[in-house]
Amino acid sequence: MSPKRILIDTDPGIDDALAFLLALASPEVSLEGITTVHGNVSAPQTTRNALSVLELARASQIPVYQGCDLPLVKESLLSPETHGDSGLGYANLPEPTTKAQAQHASDFLIETILSNPNEMTLLCIGPLTNVALALRKEPRIAQNVKEVFVMGGALFHPGNTTAQAEYNTYVDPHAAHIIYHSGMPITLTPLDVTYQCIFTPDDLKRLQKIDSPITKFIADSTRFYMEFHDEYQRIEGCVINDPLTLALTFMPEICDYQNLVADVDVSSGVGLGNTFADVYNYDKKTPNLRVALGVRPRQFMELFLERMESLAQKIS
Amino acid sequence: MSPKRILIDTDPGIDDALAFLLALASPEVSLEGITTVHGNVSAPQTTRNALSVLELARASQIPVYQGCDLPLVKESLLSPETHGDSGLGYANLPEPTTKAQAQHASDFLIETILSNPNEMTLLCIGPLTNVALALRKEPRIAQNVKEVFVMGGALFHPGNTTAQAEYNTYVDPHAAHIIYHSGMPITLTPLDVTYQCIFTPDDLKRLQKIDSPITKFIADSTRFYMEFHDEYQRIEGCVINDPLTLALTFMPEICDYQNLVADVDVSSGVGLGNTFADVYNYDKKTPNLRVALGVRPRQFMELFLERMESLAQKIS
Amino acid sequence: MSPKRILIDTDPGIDDALAFLLALASPEVSLEGITTVHGNVSAPQTTRNALSVLELARASQIPVYQGCDLPLVKESLLSPETHGDSGLGYANLPEPTTKAQAQHASDFLIETILSNPNEMTLLCIGPLTNVALALRKEPRIAQNVKEVFVMGGALFHPGNTTAQAEYNTYVDPHAAHIIYHSGMPITLTPLDVTYQCIFTPDDLKRLQKIDSPITKFIADSTRFYMEFHDEYQRIEGCVINDPLTLALTFMPEICDYQNLVADVDVSSGVGLGNTFADVYNYDKKTPNLRVALGVRPRQFMELFLERMESLAQKIS
Amino acid sequence: MSPKRILIDTDPGIDDALAFLLALASPEVSLEGITTVHGNVSAPQTTRNALSVLELARASQIPVYQGCDLPLVKESLLSPETHGDSGLGYANLPEPTTKAQAQHASDFLIETILSNPNEMTLLCIGPLTNVALALRKEPRIAQNVKEVFVMGGALFHPGNTTAQAEYNTYVDPHAAHIIYHSGMPITLTPLDVTYQCIFTPDDLKRLQKIDSPITKFIADSTRFYMEFHDEYQRIEGCVINDPLTLALTFMPEICDYQNLVADVDVSSGVGLGNTFADVYNYDKKTPNLRVALGVRPRQFMELFLERMESLAQKIS
Repeated sequence: MSPKRILIDTDPGIDDALAFLLALASPEVSLEGITTVHGNVSAPQTTRNALSVLELARASQIPVYQGCDLPLVKESLLSPETHGDSGLGYANLPEPTTKAQAQHASDFLIETILSNPNEMTLLCIGPLTNVALALRKEPRIAQNVKEVFVMGGALFHPGNTTAQAEYNTYVDPHAAHIIYHSGMPITLTPLDVTYQCIFTPDDLKRLQKIDSPITKFIADSTRFYMEFHDEYQRIEGCVINDPLTLALTFMPEICDYQNLVADVDVSSGVGLGNTFADVYNYDKKTPNLRVALGVRPRQFMELFLERMESLAQKIS
Repeated sequence: MSPKRILIDTDPGIDDALAFLLALASPEVSLEGITTVHGNVSAPQTTRNALSVLELARASQIPVYQGCDLPLVKESLLSPETHGDSGLGYANLPEPTTKAQAQHASDFLIETILSNPNEMTLLCIGPLTNVALALRKEPRIAQNVKEVFVMGGALFHPGNTTAQAEYNTYVDPHAAHIIYHSGMPITLTPLDVTYQCIFTPDDLKRLQKIDSPITKFIADSTRFYMEFHDEYQRIEGCVINDPLTLALTFMPEICDYQNLVADVDVSSGVGLGNTFADVYNYDKKTPNLRVALGVRPRQFMELFLERMESLAQKIS
Repeated sequence: MSPKRILIDTDPGIDDALAFLLALASPEVSLEGITTVHGNVSAPQTTRNALSVLELARASQIPVYQGCDLPLVKESLLSPETHGDSGLGYANLPEPTTKAQAQHASDFLIETILSNPNEMTLLCIGPLTNVALALRKEPRIAQNVKEVFVMGGALFHPGNTTAQAEYNTYVDPHAAHIIYHSGMPITLTPLDVTYQCIFTPDDLKRLQKIDSPITKFIADSTRFYMEFHDEYQRIEGCVINDPLTLALTFMPEICDYQNLVADVDVSSGVGLGNTFADVYNYDKKTPNLRVALGVRPRQFMELFLERMESLAQKIS
Repeated sequence: MSPKRILIDTDPGIDDALAFLLALASPEVSLEGITTVHGNVSAPQTTRNALSVLELARASQIPVYQGCDLPLVKESLLSPETHGDSGLGYANLPEPTTKAQAQHASDFLIETILSNPNEMTLLCIGPLTNVALALRKEPRIAQNVKEVFVMGGALFHPGNTTAQAEYNTYVDPHAAHIIYHSGMPITLTPLDVTYQCIFTPDDLKRLQKIDSPITKFIADSTRFYMEFHDEYQRIEGCVINDPLTLALTFMPEICDYQNLVADVDVSSGVGLGNTFADVYNYDKKTPNLRVALGVRPRQFMELFLERMESLAQKIS
């Protein structure tokens, strides 16, 4: 079976970077492009981070396309307290020697999806502005994308940004609203499952037994992230949302799924950015999201650790 | 130890009626008055139902006070599909021979609470309009009530009226907002725990072994309620929210509790009526609700069944 | 013709006080009671101010009933920048020698209206909390009140508190929503007409020719109010909303009126508290408010000045 | 002085078509491109209409670019009751012989504005989706456009779609929110001025004295539009919002202007789509819109009639 052809739309971001590494370490997928967006840091900085991490992993052949630097409607909300000023915690990667492509992220997504009908898997692990823009400019991508995996939302779990809202969704709830009503075949990975997959200090120690720029990067970036989780949520370790989402593209059995009628609150009230499901389907609508709601955390963590070990051994 | 002095604010309602019966069957509490409110049916009808159920249980000495027939701000929303046109399912109780008191429910609450400082336990198992009115007219009841138990909300559980909202809260979210920000010592019993306590057809059969007007009433009323749960939520049996809430007043160990910063959405958006908690307390506020979030269902159900059996044996 | 029997619900407030004086100086109306509410200052302070102004005008026989000290749903919003810390600008009236009645304002309104069916004119010149409470407790006042005059809203005129909202309505928009949907026969006096009636420094000079505690009070209170209007709205003089509203009860020809379908925004958005009309009646509803939308300012101002002169001559 | 170089973003639409004709008849402006958007009818239909009207006016050399067929966040809202099923009332223009360009409307706007810095005047007379998309994809157009004229909003005037909202803004309020906060130099032409400029049956008769496809088109299209205004708003004649907006690009003295802090309501409440100004600037912000708020109607109407006569004489 040939590997899945994957595009990642992303705002690296510590766990975004770990998702890149997992993709590069996994023969089941072929990463064909990265599109960057504002979010954890500004779009110019997420672009720089994407290029740097690819270079670290000796994968600079993968093209990077910069996208939107502002949410659709809301004001910009970056998150230096979660990911550090650079977006990669305490990691201090050298300036990349490669550059982003000239084409806009949303145009690259449109072009690639339309010219490869039913071929491309889109992985969205940042605010959804680029994809929303692409959908409004060229609605036919909804019928031509093979599948979409979105890291976002907190259905029954508390939010990680407001009481109700998860970060990616809160930063651009209007974009999420567009995506969720687009008719694309979406699998959502909400905090309900990601917060059960903690990357612990012990996990880090296991990786650090291998001396490699990869393990050093993981250590430097996650150390900052662990400090955030400890201070705000009393969690020892850190939640690596994005690698879990990537893993589901080729190892779906890590999670259980429900097809649900779901939506995002775009009112101006206290629920702004809340992703919720009408579980009992009171309105008798057709389910629009496949939502991961059960997870086998150690199955995922073993996969992640093994793949990181294997990548670290290659790159030293 | 003398029994807890209890006032019930209520919209009977099938499970409301079962809460009355549990109160009357429980020596740990002394039911000193019932205030009625719109909700499952209109206020005149909930008043009639309260009087009829008291008469059925030979407890007509307990005074009933009629309250508000409209929510504070929203339009009226009755629920004949859940509780039947009369509010008591298929039960067909005779017209009561007693009448409600002349005083308005909210004035009775104010007067009773203020003249018995730190003595009265208030149990709220309907929409919260009466209590909201009382609080705005006489804010000092917040400092003089001993404790308040509220059946309402769905924090992490789906709503039973909209995707996000529980019925009592959705019917009058503005009233709930007032109550939750009043400073009263509130214990909330949300759907998160009540939906784990299913009164099953087997439970009903056990009660029906005793031939009594009480068991006949329970059978006739819950049969309708079970049909509703089957059609809308694929639950076999019915959820008896209100007796559980009553039980917590004297047997708190049935549940586990968390002190949380909680609120009700009173925007005009899709979250209207949603009760939610800021679990990580991002806004660093003082917890305003003690919320039942864990439950031992059979411990409760045994209590309920035994007390109903005992009551049925007395009244035949 | 016997004088109109009037009740004033009010939060004095500088222009509220002027409305009392105009009522007392006008044989066309008989002021039978004042109910006080939070607003410009707290309810205890508006009560004190009402008593003091009545005493100043030798009208302490008129009973004062204190009402709600909090808005229904929103947090309290006082306005010391408009009316001064005491609520009466630079006026420094002595502590009143009389006291408020024991009965709650909303109960007094209910009792008086129900026992005088189709007799009482209700003038509402503060936030509408008391009247909302009365309507929810006893809906029949809607059918028994003769007429209601409300000072509030800004339909086509800018707000005086937010871009869109007028102060009385913004302070308790939920109460206004209740009143406007109650079925009571309401005449609204919005900023659209009140802001055309400026009490100017020249008007004040004319009154000051009479040496009287009344003219001294008008001078001391309006001086503060004029400073506010100058700083916030570049208006020379001050807008005396409440006396205009009182005048309309017996001299309706000062204004022109339209029967409109009107509402108050109670969402959580930027329009919160906005009073607006569906002028073209797109929803084909029955008009619920008679709105004063044209005004003859000098006709009103002459009335006001003459009556104040006459009162000042009596009280010296 | 060389003519103003103009791009029109539009959803023709009867008055949109009249704006094209006025542009083509006016030597003061040079129409360099038309971008189409959903609105009065679907984007494919507005594109077809734009091409047909250009062909009618023998101006098919002007390129047309099709844009978005959906609003950003809201569901689609077309307006067949105002403009007829075809969008041009009773006019029945032949199928155009030309086609739209391949490039997307928003990309054409970006490219043209960036490659002609400070040269292009953008006239927006439909829902603002295309321009919003362009701004989010390439924010630098805000600094490179010379000026933007927007037909939209109803500040103190009632809405023409809901009580508060004007059609273009209501159809895509989120897009309008983006445009109004973009920093572009915007002149807004709201209903406050357009509803004072009525194209009357007498005006039409004057034009019909000239026998021409142009006058026949104006007659056929506006007859439908007049029927709408008569039925919904009791206006005899029709409001030609878009030609007035076009006229202001070269004859600004038709209107008076105020620089205001303005915004669009994007909440989920009754104010959705409302354009409002903070006239007293309570929040001390920098004005973001120049708003036409006074108008000399006959000056405009004479201009319009003369230009239409002149165009009709050329094309027969």
